[in-house]
Amino acid sequence: MYTYEQLHQFATQIFIAIGHEEDLAKKASDVLISADLRGVDSHGIARLKGYVRLWEVNRINAKPNIRIVHETPSTATVDADAALGLISAPIAMKIAIDKAKQVGSGWVSVKNSNHYGIAGYHSMMALEEDMIGISMTNASPLVAPTFGKERMLGTNPISVAIPTLHQTPFVADMATTTAANGKLEILQRKNLDTPLGWVQDADGNPTTNAHGVKEGGALLPLGGDREHASHKGYILGSIVDIFSAVLSGANYGPWAPPFVSFMDPVADPVGEGLGHFFGAMRVDAFRPKEDFLRNMDTWVERFRKTAPIDTDNPVQIPGDYEREMEADRRINGIPLLAPVIADLKELGEKFGVTL
Amino acid sequence: MYTYEQLHQFATQIFIAIGHEEDLAKKASDVLISADLRGVDSHGIARLKGYVRLWEVNRINAKPNIRIVHETPSTATVDADAALGLISAPIAMKIAIDKAKQVGSGWVSVKNSNHYGIAGYHSMMALEEDMIGISMTNASPLVAPTFGKERMLGTNPISVAIPTLHQTPFVADMATTTAANGKLEILQRKNLDTPLGWVQDADGNPTTNAHGVKEGGALLPLGGDREHASHKGYILGSIVDIFSAVLSGANYGPWAPPFVSFMDPVADPVGEGLGHFFGAMRVDAFRPKEDFLRNMDTWVERFRKTAPIDTDNPVQIPGDYEREMEADRRINGIPLLAPVIADLKELGEKFGVTL
Repeated sequence: MYTYEQLHQFATQIFIAIGHEEDLAKKASDVLISADLRGVDSHGIARLKGYVRLWEVNRINAKPNIRIVHETPSTATVDADAALGLISAPIAMKIAIDKAKQVGSGWVSVKNSNHYGIAGYHSMMALEEDMIGISMTNASPLVAPTFGKERMLGTNPISVAIPTLHQTPFVADMATTTAANGKLEILQRKNLDTPLGWVQDADGNPTTNAHGVKEGGALLPLGGDREHASHKGYILGSIVDIFSAVLSGANYGPWAPPFVSFMDPVADPVGEGLGHFFGAMRVDAFRPKEDFLRNMDTWVERFRKTAPIDTDNPVQIPGDYEREMEADRRINGIPLLAPVIADLKELGEKFGVTL
Repeated sequence: MYTYEQLHQFATQIFIAIGHEEDLAKKASDVLISADLRGVDSHGIARLKGYVRLWEVNRINAKPNIRIVHETPSTATVDADAALGLISAPIAMKIAIDKAKQVGSGWVSVKNSNHYGIAGYHSMMALEEDMIGISMTNASPLVAPTFGKERMLGTNPISVAIPTLHQTPFVADMATTTAANGKLEILQRKNLDTPLGWVQDADGNPTTNAHGVKEGGALLPLGGDREHASHKGYILGSIVDIFSAVLSGANYGPWAPPFVSFMDPVADPVGEGLGHFFGAMRVDAFRPKEDFLRNMDTWVERFRKTAPIDTDNPVQIPGDYEREMEADRRINGIPLLAPVIADLKELGEKFGVTL
């Protein structure tokens, strides 16, 4: 078990070691370790090595000049200058929030960026301002569109955070595939099969092979097959791709640069780096704040009271799981798997940082 | 077979007969008959009787004072004054577009409205302005959240329309359930079973009974079951509900008023009428217009060329089906089922209008 502070400090020192100023390194760690805290282990410190490797192949700029390159009162496009997405994303979300303060809502697309951690960190920045926050990103192509056998989209997550008065806020953070890659990795480690509807093989046949994606197959869009409306998952992933990357001028669809350093980005890019998209809407841009927040409390209370199929298994509000994980891990610490600890120790030795 | 003009004229005269001014009646028919044209038969003239019945029980105001009740430069809330959603929705979308012209993007929530036809009509209004259009609405509660057996949400559709230069535009229009109600109705008429994952029975058990919803069960959120991530469909339906109804002050969740006139709205409403939400973003609020449109052309071309599983069944672009239906039906006419024709004749006799 490690404390939040231990992991945060370690990651910060690594980010400094690869050339970041201390304030940027700390911000990157805030985003990265929030994933470990919230139980999204696949997106936390386990990825630190991956970011360092991207830096080693000159795909991360540790001294970025992150700037607005196009704007209107309610919108902006940000050039992340090849920064860690962990750094460019909160800066872009802050621009969206500032625009919302001025004109009611703010919408920011980002190009020339990299993997931005968990989508929910950024959308949740809006909550303390009594705004609705929206966050999405495109990602390494692993997903086949309905009827296709080629990997054309990433798991392209969508996060929406909505404030409440006294109730727990509504915080959705979901991949637009049936299963996120992290879930597959768990089954791979345990040598278990997946349910049908998560993965297809290299010929496009349904498979239960948890290694199917690595063997040339693809993740399936939310819905899983045409009969269960996988075209809707394909639509959602496409919208995320277009808002994040076509709107900003990043690489879209199959051109999205891979997160792994051993795969080179495509030789004929259609844009710059990876793309994100953020939104912030002041709730009092639509009605008096208290009215909205009180109604949201009623919404949350009423949905919790939905007649359950099984009384031991009540209907949940989006964000419940992550909130419970965070409450537990702040007190009891964050568990890490042995291979992750080994990776971190190796990283530490390389850069003279102790865990 | 009927021509578009025949159905449009008939619907217009019926809307006038129940008290609408001619221009509003024509606008309502534009929206209504666009569904027939685009092959979404469940949302077209087959529903005309339903709208008239709502008017008969005083739930439709034919002389509405549709007005902005709250606004900022980029947002507005509209009180539809119990108008047909077919009338209030295009007015609200126009406000979103006008705000986008001024400040880059416009976002409009609507309360006190009624069923607004197909979501895609409204989002597509943005295309001719070189804007991205967004449209969503809450609806009669028919859908159970994951782990619940109670109907808490509507089929709550999302539509996103994205312009291109020479290619066909991207026009998504999807219910946030595995199957829209219209698909169930087709199976009911043919006395066929549904696939598992579309419907659950009154106890929350999976069922293949196409009549399951009418018998006290519920439609299932996109994903179908927990293993296939139905919680993501529940999240999407909830976001539509909150943006459409909590943001505007309409009835949300299980309080959403039913479309059918024989069911009374709940006695303890939490808001006014049904809610919608619209968005418009100028593409040149993010980057030069031509750059965006050219990249979208490349996006569409590349996705059409996705390696297919079956070469006879290529990957489609959202909106292909509806566009093909429209091209066909403009020339060859719109087929109507015998019961629909009977309903229309009965309506016509009542109001002295001939089909």
